[in-house]
Amino acid sequence: MASFKRWMVGSPIKTARLTHERLTKKIALAIFASDALSSTAYATEQILLVLAAAYMAGQTGSFGKVIPISIAIGALLIIVATSYRQTIRAYPSGGGAFIVAKENLGTTPGLIAGASLLIDYCLTVSVSTSAGVEAITSAMVGTRFAWLHDHRVALCFFFITFIMLANLRGVREAGSFFAAPSYAFIVSFLGLIGYGLISYYISPDVAPIPDDANMKIAEGYGVQSLGLFLLLGAFANGCAALTGIEAISNGVQAFKQPESKNAAITLTWMAALLVTMFIGASVLAYLFGVHPQHRETVISQIARAVFTGPVGWFYYVVQATTAGILVLAANTSFSGFPRLASLLAKDRFLPRQLANLGDRLVFSNGIVVLALFSGTLVWAFGADTSRLIPLYAVGVFLGFTLSQSGMVVHWWKEGKQLKAMRAAVATGNVGGDKPIEKKRSAEVMLTGKLDPSRLTKSGEEPKTVAEVAALEKKSHWRKYLAINGVGALSTFLVLTVFLVTKFTHGAWIVVVLIPLMVFMFKRIHRHYIEVAEQLSTEGLSQLRPIHHEVIVPISGIHRGVIEALEYAKSIAPHHVTAVYVNLDDEAARKLREKWQQWGSGVNLVVVASPYRSLARPLLNYVDRVKRTKKGVVTIVLPEFVPAKWWQNLLHNQNTLFLKGALLFKKGIVVTNVPYHLEH
Amino acid sequence: MASFKRWMVGSPIKTARLTHERLTKKIALAIFASDALSSTAYATEQILLVLAAAYMAGQTGSFGKVIPISIAIGALLIIVATSYRQTIRAYPSGGGAFIVAKENLGTTPGLIAGASLLIDYCLTVSVSTSAGVEAITSAMVGTRFAWLHDHRVALCFFFITFIMLANLRGVREAGSFFAAPSYAFIVSFLGLIGYGLISYYISPDVAPIPDDANMKIAEGYGVQSLGLFLLLGAFANGCAALTGIEAISNGVQAFKQPESKNAAITLTWMAALLVTMFIGASVLAYLFGVHPQHRETVISQIARAVFTGPVGWFYYVVQATTAGILVLAANTSFSGFPRLASLLAKDRFLPRQLANLGDRLVFSNGIVVLALFSGTLVWAFGADTSRLIPLYAVGVFLGFTLSQSGMVVHWWKEGKQLKAMRAAVATGNVGGDKPIEKKRSAEVMLTGKLDPSRLTKSGEEPKTVAEVAALEKKSHWRKYLAINGVGALSTFLVLTVFLVTKFTHGAWIVVVLIPLMVFMFKRIHRHYIEVAEQLSTEGLSQLRPIHHEVIVPISGIHRGVIEALEYAKSIAPHHVTAVYVNLDDEAARKLREKWQQWGSGVNLVVVASPYRSLARPLLNYVDRVKRTKKGVVTIVLPEFVPAKWWQNLLHNQNTLFLKGALLFKKGIVVTNVPYHLEH
Repeated sequence: MASFKRWMVGSPIKTARLTHERLTKKIALAIFASDALSSTAYATEQILLVLAAAYMAGQTGSFGKVIPISIAIGALLIIVATSYRQTIRAYPSGGGAFIVAKENLGTTPGLIAGASLLIDYCLTVSVSTSAGVEAITSAMVGTRFAWLHDHRVALCFFFITFIMLANLRGVREAGSFFAAPSYAFIVSFLGLIGYGLISYYISPDVAPIPDDANMKIAEGYGVQSLGLFLLLGAFANGCAALTGIEAISNGVQAFKQPESKNAAITLTWMAALLVTMFIGASVLAYLFGVHPQHRETVISQIARAVFTGPVGWFYYVVQATTAGILVLAANTSFSGFPRLASLLAKDRFLPRQLANLGDRLVFSNGIVVLALFSGTLVWAFGADTSRLIPLYAVGVFLGFTLSQSGMVVHWWKEGKQLKAMRAAVATGNVGGDKPIEKKRSAEVMLTGKLDPSRLTKSGEEPKTVAEVAALEKKSHWRKYLAINGVGALSTFLVLTVFLVTKFTHGAWIVVVLIPLMVFMFKRIHRHYIEVAEQLSTEGLSQLRPIHHEVIVPISGIHRGVIEALEYAKSIAPHHVTAVYVNLDDEAARKLREKWQQWGSGVNLVVVASPYRSLARPLLNYVDRVKRTKKGVVTIVLPEFVPAKWWQNLLHNQNTLFLKGALLFKKGIVVTNVPYHLEH
Repeated sequence: MASFKRWMVGSPIKTARLTHERLTKKIALAIFASDALSSTAYATEQILLVLAAAYMAGQTGSFGKVIPISIAIGALLIIVATSYRQTIRAYPSGGGAFIVAKENLGTTPGLIAGASLLIDYCLTVSVSTSAGVEAITSAMVGTRFAWLHDHRVALCFFFITFIMLANLRGVREAGSFFAAPSYAFIVSFLGLIGYGLISYYISPDVAPIPDDANMKIAEGYGVQSLGLFLLLGAFANGCAALTGIEAISNGVQAFKQPESKNAAITLTWMAALLVTMFIGASVLAYLFGVHPQHRETVISQIARAVFTGPVGWFYYVVQATTAGILVLAANTSFSGFPRLASLLAKDRFLPRQLANLGDRLVFSNGIVVLALFSGTLVWAFGADTSRLIPLYAVGVFLGFTLSQSGMVVHWWKEGKQLKAMRAAVATGNVGGDKPIEKKRSAEVMLTGKLDPSRLTKSGEEPKTVAEVAALEKKSHWRKYLAINGVGALSTFLVLTVFLVTKFTHGAWIVVVLIPLMVFMFKRIHRHYIEVAEQLSTEGLSQLRPIHHEVIVPISGIHRGVIEALEYAKSIAPHHVTAVYVNLDDEAARKLREKWQQWGSGVNLVVVASPYRSLARPLLNYVDRVKRTKKGVVTIVLPEFVPAKWWQNLLHNQNTLFLKGALLFKKGIVVTNVPYHLEH
């Protein structure tokens, strides 16, 4: 068992190597961007699926709306990315929505953000693997592997297991492992867009005849004409393109030093690539007149239309790299989920086991938990991306909104802090203790310990008006507050749109789940606090002597029993009682005779058992002793340890039953004295 | 949980009531005969199913062979029943094939008989419930409950569970519970035969037109013309009628006193009823031209044909009582299987748990095991009687053959004993000790202790030639040997026929299984013998003093740890070491400081853990102590007992892992000192 684990996940790594497991920008882009970039594989399709409802109602031009909707989403994406650059700068040690919301808005908003992020990590894994598997089955349409379409759930399970194992091996090995497919996807997808646009302008009549008999409509939409509700629904669906953009800000601490700067640069690159690829895909879908289908993805249809003739083989490159990045995008969550779970666990909001680094320096428990939950989601929704999407973006945008709101508060506090400094300097109170200024000084304290960036070059608090003015100039808090304010407002609006348009399509599940999770976090937290209080050594001063009685239940006289009696005598020489349950008068009489030889001063008690039960009379006897004697009662149980496992089936499990029955009694200690059988 | 069990199976019964749980002849007939008599519900059909292979080949007269085949089986039945009457007389304490074969032929033949009987008990339950359910679904043909046909497995599970619960309540309650349906079946079936014969002779043209499109052929038979192989196959299939005839001889001890006589009378009644009903059913099937069908049993077709017009309702009486006795026939096995398993367990050939009387004075474990195995069989064979039949009779006839052969040896030994007596009397050696006669006297001893029936009226060994002659006259051993010899020979012939005709249809499973089971019996036996040897107190004279070291693994200083240290000091005041695994240098330093206050003379050892594992360094330390110190090492583990079960999920299960790792080490005792959390 142990060696199987070693073979799967590798040898243990020493704690001392912890700081070396950091990521370069290139590998970090591959790891953290795969989620965001891979959403281009399905975001355009999610818009078309909603517009299809109007197309089916006869409005054949409705698919044209994909262009303005995509541009609007692109603009939103730039706003959100800009907002997150600031978060990275303000939280160099890693500023996920949980931390930002908790520090600036309070514990409950922090927990709400934490819950929504945990849900989204699961959904990222489910949606990405499902979409990846769809990319594979799309490529199989018309080949003799078309039957793979019916085994999408099994394929997803295979990929989830694969990624889980890769992650259990450790984050850097996982990184280099995933860098190649990420870059292959970026190159082939940009190639698709470039070649597609060029070949369209050379011969614009390449559009295939759409197969409207197999047209697919988004989950929950009936055929209807194009109105505001449909447009908003299409917009909300397309916002799936934004998922994953926050990944970098959650994982700043995984970057090489300087973490903050490297993370910000990586985020900018990612956003630029994402906007280009997403809008490019939407434009191609429009130009080539692609309609959403049941058994083939939109990207697959585009690539089939673009790459014909001598470059036909490139279609398979696109599908393979798309599947690659999608399935591996799930990997983002396998870095993020365990990291967030460990943060929550360290704050005692989740079981402490999730805070433990495994022997490969990764949070192994979190990795396994994520694989289980996301696998369950895939199974429950039949590995169908379009059915999972309505659950997806609620949590994402709730996290965005809370995180950006937290940043607004953050900058506002900074402004307040600077104002307090200026006031302190003006009255000459820096370092002083004049009582009249106490209130203001307290205000400086209130806003938390001083941000390093709020110190002068010499590393001290500003002492002059000029120094404060220099800091204020460096701060830009008003500008930053405005940027994050715009981010918060726009993501909140999208969240509202999402809740209105998708509530009945599945979003309600997340709306119900988040409060439940927050409640669970708080219950867990209360339990840990209560345990800590109960375990406090307050009121104790040193070890106290205790008295104890020993009871040895025996079934006769044999070597196992003799060893148990010897042990019992050694731990409490003058307080041992052997108890025998009388199931057979003749056997009891013989035992009493033998006791002359073996008793050695140990008291023998024979208890009656009219109903042939062993446990009941013994438990009654123990209760009686417990009531009459002070201190601890130790039950010494003789126990066989057979040489082979199957031999356990051949022995009564009385010892086990007794142990179970005694486990929850106070003041009782159960000790097994094992007797090892040879063969 | 406990109260649910009480509600299902009733309150416990005191051991003292054991002897009162005996059966009257009437109730015994209901219990033990239900298996044998119920086979009339399917035995005729099993013959027709084989003959159908020839009918389909165009030999329309082939179904007529059912009459001679049934008569042959009836004759065999009378031979076997006569043989078993002798077994009952010779083994008044219960002479199942296991006991008879073991005593007379040796252990291995006894175990073979035991294995075959255990298999047959399982098959009896499976076949009977399946046939009972078929009786129900046959009656539903053409009604709106016809869909029940597709849920036969589920129906079987329901009935098996029901009978299991009835038996867990105790044998007498079960008996009175089942008497009514048994007698209802006997009356209605004899009514069917009588009314059927009369109405046929009044108007012989009532035969329905057979629906040959739905004709069913026995499992494993292709369409073929009527040859010896087919006739033998039909005969072998029909021998299913004999199953259950041995039930009474296995359960003699369940009868009221005089057990032996009551059992023999009951057996005779049963055999008479069985022959009448079986041949009657075959005759009716022939007269009414019934052909085996897929969705309706032969008995159901007969009853439909016989009861028409104003007496049509009696059809439902026949089906209901047939279903009743079949489903309840399974009950025979629920008396027999646990009884045989307990005999094997008492001889240490099966796990001893099977020898325990449960708290309702029945062998509860055996009852549950039987329900599980038979349920599995039903599931594996889709509750189809005709697929189970080929497995059935191998074990039955193997048991018959071994049992009858054992009886032959039994009578032969009796003859030998009488001869030795005559010789002893002739030389005047009775009670004497002349050396020249020692050999002959030894021969008397060899044949075992004297049978009570071999004593004279005064209760002593015969002393005169006349007394020996009187005994010889009373003995009839030659006649009895002949009867059992005929029984053994004929059942052996049928066994051979069965193996030849059914081997590939499923009988091979039983042929493979029996040696495996005998092997298992012997392995289990060897284990118990070896355990007894290892536990023997030979070489020991009294309790020896032992030395022990105590190790307390600690994770810090809190109330739970303090209680564990107090406990450790109380059991070995000067030999306690606390061990701390260093996962964090800072925490280790703090602990050392605190130890000044809390140590109280207890030695503190801090061990390093470069791979963040808790268990590994601890286990290494324990090994080191074990190597250097003599005697026992006790590990005292502080352990939380949370107030609510779900709180267990919030604590590391380190204690559990450690316990598991230490359980199989010699000379190590693990003691948990529980610390009970309040909320």
